[in-house]
Amino acid sequence: MDDRVREHAEVLVDWSARVDAGDQVVMDIAEGAHDLAVAVAAELGERDARLLTTYGSSEVGRAFLRAGDDDDREFAHSEPKLAMLEAADVYLRIGGGRNTTALADVDGDRRRRARKATTATREARMDTDWVSTVHPTRSLAQQAGMAYEEYRDFVYDAVLRDWESLAEEMANMKEILDAGSEVRIEKERTDLTMSIEDRTAVNSAASVAYDSHNLPSGEVFTAPHATEGEVYFDVPMTIDARRVRGVSLTFEDGEVVDFAAEQGEEAIADVLATDEGARRLGELGIGMNRGIDRFTDSILFDEKMGDTVHLAVGRAYDACLPEGESGNDSAVHVDMITDMSEDSRMLVDGEVVQHNGTFRWEDDFSAE
Amino acid sequence: MDDRVREHAEVLVDWSARVDAGDQVVMDIAEGAHDLAVAVAAELGERDARLLTTYGSSEVGRAFLRAGDDDDREFAHSEPKLAMLEAADVYLRIGGGRNTTALADVDGDRRRRARKATTATREARMDTDWVSTVHPTRSLAQQAGMAYEEYRDFVYDAVLRDWESLAEEMANMKEILDAGSEVRIEKERTDLTMSIEDRTAVNSAASVAYDSHNLPSGEVFTAPHATEGEVYFDVPMTIDARRVRGVSLTFEDGEVVDFAAEQGEEAIADVLATDEGARRLGELGIGMNRGIDRFTDSILFDEKMGDTVHLAVGRAYDACLPEGESGNDSAVHVDMITDMSEDSRMLVDGEVVQHNGTFRWEDDFSAE
Repeated sequence: MDDRVREHAEVLVDWSARVDAGDQVVMDIAEGAHDLAVAVAAELGERDARLLTTYGSSEVGRAFLRAGDDDDREFAHSEPKLAMLEAADVYLRIGGGRNTTALADVDGDRRRRARKATTATREARMDTDWVSTVHPTRSLAQQAGMAYEEYRDFVYDAVLRDWESLAEEMANMKEILDAGSEVRIEKERTDLTMSIEDRTAVNSAASVAYDSHNLPSGEVFTAPHATEGEVYFDVPMTIDARRVRGVSLTFEDGEVVDFAAEQGEEAIADVLATDEGARRLGELGIGMNRGIDRFTDSILFDEKMGDTVHLAVGRAYDACLPEGESGNDSAVHVDMITDMSEDSRMLVDGEVVQHNGTFRWEDDFSAE
Repeated sequence: MDDRVREHAEVLVDWSARVDAGDQVVMDIAEGAHDLAVAVAAELGERDARLLTTYGSSEVGRAFLRAGDDDDREFAHSEPKLAMLEAADVYLRIGGGRNTTALADVDGDRRRRARKATTATREARMDTDWVSTVHPTRSLAQQAGMAYEEYRDFVYDAVLRDWESLAEEMANMKEILDAGSEVRIEKERTDLTMSIEDRTAVNSAASVAYDSHNLPSGEVFTAPHATEGEVYFDVPMTIDARRVRGVSLTFEDGEVVDFAAEQGEEAIADVLATDEGARRLGELGIGMNRGIDRFTDSILFDEKMGDTVHLAVGRAYDACLPEGESGNDSAVHVDMITDMSEDSRMLVDGEVVQHNGTFRWEDDFSAE
C-alpha cells in the first residue's frame, strides 16, 4: 500500500474526525475506495473505535432508483439507515467511484423524489461528526483530465498538508471577515459588494473541531447578504451533468436580476428557477489551499484552491449566522468559482486584503 | 450481465426472503459480490422495498481486528449496527470475497473476543428474515479447485432449482425426524447416537417461509442433544482460514471429551475452547440438494450436498426447539461433514432411514 494512503487515513481519523476510544463510527465506502477504507479501519482499530461499514455504490443506487413504475415507488427513507445514523458519533464518507456518470440515466424527477424522501437521514448525518473525503480512482482522474499517477499526486498534495499551520494562516482571514461589514470583489467584468455584518466566518481547516467537514478543505467562508453589482466566474464546472463556463451574474437588492453564460446557460437558468433562495447568495468562500494547483471539475477540490473565491447561490450554512437566526433558505447550493490570481482585488470595508492572489499579511503584498 | 445473476436475485428476493412493498431491507455486500448486489437492488426497487447497503469486506475486517495492542482493544459491538438490525425486516447477506484466506493472520484470541462481543448484533440479525447467499467469484472458484466458468455453472446449478418440489421431498425426512426420538449414525470410525426427543426438524428449503436462511439450501436439520459415541468427518474444510481434515470427536453425556484431526487440530481446539456450548452439538443436518455434486470447501454448499450428514458444535437454532425453550448456547456454530454415500447407515429409533446415500422412500432403497 502506498504510504500516502495510510497518511490520508491518519489525517482523516486524527485531525479531521477526532476519533476517540469507544466512538461509534459509520464509514461509507464508494465502489473504488476499498484501499483507503482498509487503511482507515486500521486507524479506527488502533483507537478502539466501533466500526460499521456501509457501501456507497452509485451502480447499486442506480439499479434501485430506476426499478419499478413511477406510481408504485414511494422512495421513503430507510429506517435502518436512520436508526444507524442516530446511533453514530462519527460518519466518514469515503468517496471514489468507478464512473462519475453512473447515474446519468436516472430520471431527474426520481432523483428529486428520492432526495426529498431522505431529508431525515441527511439531517441525522449532519448531526454526527461527519467528514467527506475521496480516494483517488481512475474515474476521478479521468474527470480531471489527468493520468492516474498524476491525479494521485494531486490528491495527496491537497490532503496531506500541515493543517495546523494552514488553520493558523486562515485565522487571519477569519479575523478580518468577522471584524468587517462589507466585502468587495474587483476583477475583469466583476465589481461586487456584499454585506457580512453580524456574520461569523468559518475557518474551514478540514476538521470537525473547526466546523469543517471536508478533507481536503482550506477555505474561509461566510454567509453574505444584500449583494450588489456584477460578477464573472471564469472557472468551468459541471452542474447536473451539464458543462457550464463563463457565467455572469448581476445582483440588485441581494437578488440575481440578470445572468448569462458562455456555455450551459440553461443549467444556470434551471438552478436560479428552483426557488426564491436560489437567486440569492448563500456563501462567500475564499480558497486558501495552495496544495491544490489546478481545477479538476470536482467541487471538493476546486472551491478550496488557493487564489480563488467562490460564491454559492442557495442555502447558507447555520454556522455563519447569529445564534437562532436562519440564513438564506433554498433546496440548492451551487458553487461558482472565480480566479483571483491576477488583475484582481478583494476589499473589506474599503481596505485591500487580497491583491493578485497575495493576502495582506503576506510578505510580498502590495495594495496597489 | 449473465441472465443467471438476475435469476439468482429474483429467487433470493421472491422465494427466499419474500420481500414485500415497504419492507426495510439491509443488504450486506462482500468485496466481490457487486454484480449480484446490483441485480438484487433492481428486484428490491421493483417491489418498492427500502434499502440500506453495508460492506462486508474481510480485508476491512482484518485491518480493524489486527490494529492496536491487546490491552487497548475492547471489541464491543457497534451500536449503529445494532440499531440498524433492530429496525430491519429483512437482512440479505451477499457473500463472495476476493480472498477466502483474507483473515489468515488475525490472531485466534482476537477473533474469539470479537465474536463474543458481537452476540447482540448476531441475535438482532437472527430476528430478521435473513438470508445468506453467495455470488460466484474467482476466489471461491479457486477454493473449490475449479475454473471460474465451471464454478459459476456449479453455483447456479445449486441455486436455480425447483425449490417447491425439493421442499416436498424434504418433507419426508422432516416427518421421520419429527416422529423420532433417537438418531444413530454408523460408518467407518463412527457410531454416534443423539436424542432428538421433543425437537422439531426444519425443512430447509431456502426460504424464510420454511425457517430456512441459506440460498442454496436443501437440508433437513434439527437440534440434537445427549450425544454419545464417536464420529469421523471425512470431508475437508477450512475453519478460520486454517485447513482442517479428518476430524474425530468423542462424546460423553452430550459433551466432546476427546478430539483429534489429521490436519488443523489446533483450529478444532480453538473452536472447542470458545465456551461451554462449543463442546456440545447444536445441529444435525441431512444434505439433500443433489444439484450440489461435489465438495467445494464452502459450508454454504458442502453441508447441503446430497448423501451427506453434518454436525455442528455450538449454537442451536431456536426453530428446532419447543416454544420458549432455548437450546445449546454458544458464540460459535461450526459445521463438520461426513460422506454418507458408501458403507454408511442412518437410523431413527432403530430403523434404517438412509443406507449408502439412498433414503427409505426412494425406489432402490434397501435397509441391509
